[in-house]
Amino acid sequence: MRSSAMRDMMAITARPEIISLAGGLPDTSTFPVDAFVAEMDRIAGGKVPEVLQYGPTEGLQLVREQITEVMLAEQMHVDVADVTVTTGGQQAIDLITKVLIDPGDILICDAPTYPGAIPTFCSYEAEIIQIESDADGMRIDILEQTLAELAERGRKPKFIYSVPTFQNPGGVTLSLERRQQLVAIARRHEILIVEDNPYGLLRYEGEALPTLYALDGGAYVVYLGTFSKILSAGLRIGWVVAPPPIREKIVLGKGASDLCTSTLTQDFAGEYFKKGNWQAYVDDLIDIYRSRRDAMVGAMSEYFPHGATWNKPHGGLFIWATMPDVLDTSDMLAKAISKGVAFVPGTSAYVDGRGASSMRLNFSGVREDEIIEGIRRIGAVAREQLDLYETMTASQEMRLPPLPEDESGGESR
Amino acid sequence: MRSSAMRDMMAITARPEIISLAGGLPDTSTFPVDAFVAEMDRIAGGKVPEVLQYGPTEGLQLVREQITEVMLAEQMHVDVADVTVTTGGQQAIDLITKVLIDPGDILICDAPTYPGAIPTFCSYEAEIIQIESDADGMRIDILEQTLAELAERGRKPKFIYSVPTFQNPGGVTLSLERRQQLVAIARRHEILIVEDNPYGLLRYEGEALPTLYALDGGAYVVYLGTFSKILSAGLRIGWVVAPPPIREKIVLGKGASDLCTSTLTQDFAGEYFKKGNWQAYVDDLIDIYRSRRDAMVGAMSEYFPHGATWNKPHGGLFIWATMPDVLDTSDMLAKAISKGVAFVPGTSAYVDGRGASSMRLNFSGVREDEIIEGIRRIGAVAREQLDLYETMTASQEMRLPPLPEDESGGESR
Repeated sequence: MRSSAMRDMMAITARPEIISLAGGLPDTSTFPVDAFVAEMDRIAGGKVPEVLQYGPTEGLQLVREQITEVMLAEQMHVDVADVTVTTGGQQAIDLITKVLIDPGDILICDAPTYPGAIPTFCSYEAEIIQIESDADGMRIDILEQTLAELAERGRKPKFIYSVPTFQNPGGVTLSLERRQQLVAIARRHEILIVEDNPYGLLRYEGEALPTLYALDGGAYVVYLGTFSKILSAGLRIGWVVAPPPIREKIVLGKGASDLCTSTLTQDFAGEYFKKGNWQAYVDDLIDIYRSRRDAMVGAMSEYFPHGATWNKPHGGLFIWATMPDVLDTSDMLAKAISKGVAFVPGTSAYVDGRGASSMRLNFSGVREDEIIEGIRRIGAVAREQLDLYETMTASQEMRLPPLPEDESGGESR
Repeated sequence: MRSSAMRDMMAITARPEIISLAGGLPDTSTFPVDAFVAEMDRIAGGKVPEVLQYGPTEGLQLVREQITEVMLAEQMHVDVADVTVTTGGQQAIDLITKVLIDPGDILICDAPTYPGAIPTFCSYEAEIIQIESDADGMRIDILEQTLAELAERGRKPKFIYSVPTFQNPGGVTLSLERRQQLVAIARRHEILIVEDNPYGLLRYEGEALPTLYALDGGAYVVYLGTFSKILSAGLRIGWVVAPPPIREKIVLGKGASDLCTSTLTQDFAGEYFKKGNWQAYVDDLIDIYRSRRDAMVGAMSEYFPHGATWNKPHGGLFIWATMPDVLDTSDMLAKAISKGVAFVPGTSAYVDGRGASSMRLNFSGVREDEIIEGIRRIGAVAREQLDLYETMTASQEMRLPPLPEDESGGESR
């Protein structure tokens, strides 16, 4: 039901009069039309029969090669044979879960985690354990404690799913020290890590950190990637890098799921990356997104109520904001939509109701003036609800007799 | 393991020196390049940002509308709201199975059935019951008997999956009378039918029969369609038509599986069908495929051994051939590949080892001269194995003492 309500909400936020900070849309307005035309002219020049035909389940060789080139840009050395093309990064999550999880198996993920992964994990009846994050990403001390507690009960997670870089929805990045610890834990306990890295190349400041895959070399880390944020989400091209026994199951699972990913969109992407100047478009996106992030952070400082907190992510698409804890962002959302703005309530990123005062805000898919106006509207809704709360509390305090000191401890609320 | 062996075989058959009658490829060599160029020019003229962006999970409105137009060409009247776009027809099968089947649930399908559906059904741990077919499709009398036996055990199938028109792999078409009986059974027993109809518009002779969906009106029939065989398999666009409670689950399942189908390929397909002359291309395909079918049937008459049988389907992509029952087509396949030809062994279309003397032969994706040469090679392999068998039998008969009449019944084998 929650997913269903979420979908209804997403449909509402697609209405043009709503400023939606709820999505995870890349900006596609500046993609060079010339580059699109060049690929389609090339296809029209002799490859039409090929792009209209089925392709191999594991993906076109050219695309798999280009994926290894893109991964090399983040210092990962990958064997083409280990790459399986998927229908977007979402299918990569779906297939790895399908292959590794039997009903009742435990998987561990960040808290908060990618809201779109939760329905997938649930569809395979995984038992989900979320490990709290702070400004440096997943709390490795809590992870170790959790693994120890599980071991006492004779249990072990099937995998640890994490977005370590510019996390969705938290915006945080796992520190180098914690990356090293996490990979060491995977090796020591022989637990797979599923590293999902859609945003790693979208860094707006600071130095890149090695991916978990780069640190591990691919022994205990299965890597999920996507072209959705560096080329296009509408092509639906993602990938999994996994060692042979898992890779073989991924390919069988993909065959049963959709036979193959679109040959037309694969051909487009493969040849586009082969031209070797894709980084220029990513650089354009970085400039656009950095400005939008700054606009959002600036507007939050101006319009969000006292007591609200947020971070300033070094990359990616999302800011995670937390309102004063008397506010519930799910309650706020209906009011916000009526004021013409939408966000993702924090509870969508947890399986246990946590995150009730938090929200995920997207800054990549919306113009700066809309970001500022959207944040202003959310701020107004928050202040309105805070005022209401204070009025109610004050009137309650007036009505209620004072509590005896030994019960209340003298605190007022 | 069987799927894995199947995949290895498919990889081998992709080698250019092999004439592959194993695939299910449409012919894409005659698709009008002008039509491709027209759509891509249109997109380049202002829609690039849109086609590179995410789209709604249920599919673009335009595509869903055009799907209802295509279905109208087969006399089906469908509400656009009931249509969900999928990533090819395979995802349609995957999603309906995901939504309807819990582990251990029974589903009923044709015998033989679409080989690509079996791994999907198995991945959701369905218990599969296959109902024998004859020249008029699924034997409804056996279906009724099976349902009665299941009812005695307190069981009921979750759905009946069938390709009633130009069946894959059998090539047979369910007769009108049986269609009416099947729909009546669905209503009487309140069992869903999943009608998979990729080939209905590819009829080479005879009058069209109403689909199960048309007969039922969509109350007990969930309909699966695809553009793979009337436009392109490389676009990966299929669909499900289902009433609201199922549709809602299909959309949630699709969101968890791949978020949405490619916006670029959907836009291409939607506008292509909107132009309204798509039937001309289908007519071209019909002419090509009819000739290829005839070439295959002619070559079989010439080259297949005495005792082999096959059908001449009125449409679709496949002929089902059965060798003399001393031959095993899985054994024949290795030999056939060494002679430069491939087919799908009949056991791939059953869950219980039946079909060992049969094979599925595709005539849509291969030129006529190759079809004839491919059938000649298969015929040569079959005759060689028959000769070997006869030699062995003869030498055995010479070595073995005659059996007493009361045990052997006097028959020689």
